[in-house]
Amino acid sequence: MNTDILYEHPLNAKVRIYLRLEHLFSQLETPENLSENAHWHTFFKTLFDLLEILEQVHVRGDLIKDLEKQREKISTWLKVPGIDSAQIYDLIERSTELQTTLLNAPRPGIFIREDKFLTSIRHRFSLPGGTCSFDVPLLHHWLNLPLEQKRSDTDKWRCSLSALEYAVMFWLELTRGLGNTQPCSVKNGFYQQDAEGANMLRIMIPAEYNAFPMVSGHKSRFAIRFMPFNETVALCDDMMLSLAVC
Amino acid sequence: MNTDILYEHPLNAKVRIYLRLEHLFSQLETPENLSENAHWHTFFKTLFDLLEILEQVHVRGDLIKDLEKQREKISTWLKVPGIDSAQIYDLIERSTELQTTLLNAPRPGIFIREDKFLTSIRHRFSLPGGTCSFDVPLLHHWLNLPLEQKRSDTDKWRCSLSALEYAVMFWLELTRGLGNTQPCSVKNGFYQQDAEGANMLRIMIPAEYNAFPMVSGHKSRFAIRFMPFNETVALCDDMMLSLAVC
Repeated sequence: MNTDILYEHPLNAKVRIYLRLEHLFSQLETPENLSENAHWHTFFKTLFDLLEILEQVHVRGDLIKDLEKQREKISTWLKVPGIDSAQIYDLIERSTELQTTLLNAPRPGIFIREDKFLTSIRHRFSLPGGTCSFDVPLLHHWLNLPLEQKRSDTDKWRCSLSALEYAVMFWLELTRGLGNTQPCSVKNGFYQQDAEGANMLRIMIPAEYNAFPMVSGHKSRFAIRFMPFNETVALCDDMMLSLAVC
Repeated sequence: MNTDILYEHPLNAKVRIYLRLEHLFSQLETPENLSENAHWHTFFKTLFDLLEILEQVHVRGDLIKDLEKQREKISTWLKVPGIDSAQIYDLIERSTELQTTLLNAPRPGIFIREDKFLTSIRHRFSLPGGTCSFDVPLLHHWLNLPLEQKRSDTDKWRCSLSALEYAVMFWLELTRGLGNTQPCSVKNGFYQQDAEGANMLRIMIPAEYNAFPMVSGHKSRFAIRFMPFNETVALCDDMMLSLAVC
């Protein structure tokens, strides 16, 4: 195995939420990939997990501030001689568009929370195996509707979160792109570094080390303790890996 | 639409658990169908839901008693003139085999509960979006193992529940087969009936009625209230559907 395994770790609470949302959006299948009942169960579970996060955190306000901060950072690059300024302007324009769409959209999650059908079935999804046909006959009826109708409903629910999804994805992708990947030498399974104002870590570990990272720390400083996946095999004393502080 | 929608409803607590387990087993994909990370997230979630039920209820003892009761019931048919006795003996033999396997197997779920890897990741699956790579780097490492190894692990975990799965499936399938499907006339969206000693209801509603059932009752008697899926459309006063009390 010559591949690297990429681990990402947030360095503040907001990025933690963005990564969590991205993780859930990646599991929220698009309607054309949904056909069997089990797929829809996963779809609903993921949708309700998203909703629970959106109810706990007012992510829109934070994200808009972070988009603005990101644009300021990129703008400073326009002064760098020889920079591709057209690309910078494109990014600024795209970021502004996403922010405007997000600002003009209804509050993320409100459409789902106000949907009568979704509200009726939601509470059952937190119970283990709690979505049998006898638990939620309403859902069972819905699952028996024609595929086009189910896909159309699913699309409607999914699209109600698009403005948030696109803005989160854009911010994360650009943040990742702004980090410099550096080689990093890890002695005795431990590494630490300052990271003032950073948003996230991207740790790329060659799979052959068979190790995974446990990150601690916050904002100004972080520490990584590497653990062996197989506890009976000792960790390599001197690992070379790549790290980007973004 | 000329199809019927089938709703099943348990008439006692044990059958409620069996149907719940069957529902979860049907969502627990076999390893060859697993490839993307999202599939494995669903697999683990389902596996842990199964485990939670198995920790709450001692299903094995109940199931063994129910298999015995079912065999007694089938045995009485051997006296019916003209019956296919070979088929009855086959069913009795299969039931006895499944019971022996279940009795000799370790307690259902114990293998999963004692698996160190599964124990380490389990608690994160009850949190919304709680299985990001930074939440459970151990899982993220596992997800990056070669596909064959992941499928082999998955197969091992799944197989540890096979004895229970086959016995539950057998009991349910035979119980379903023992019910007589009868036409049933429903006036003003309400129906009730005695059902002494029955295990479950199977209600088949033509999709064109656009209605779903809400069943109440227990063991000796049940009542079904039919509800319109679309609340703005009135329910048909006089519905003809099929019902099996099994």
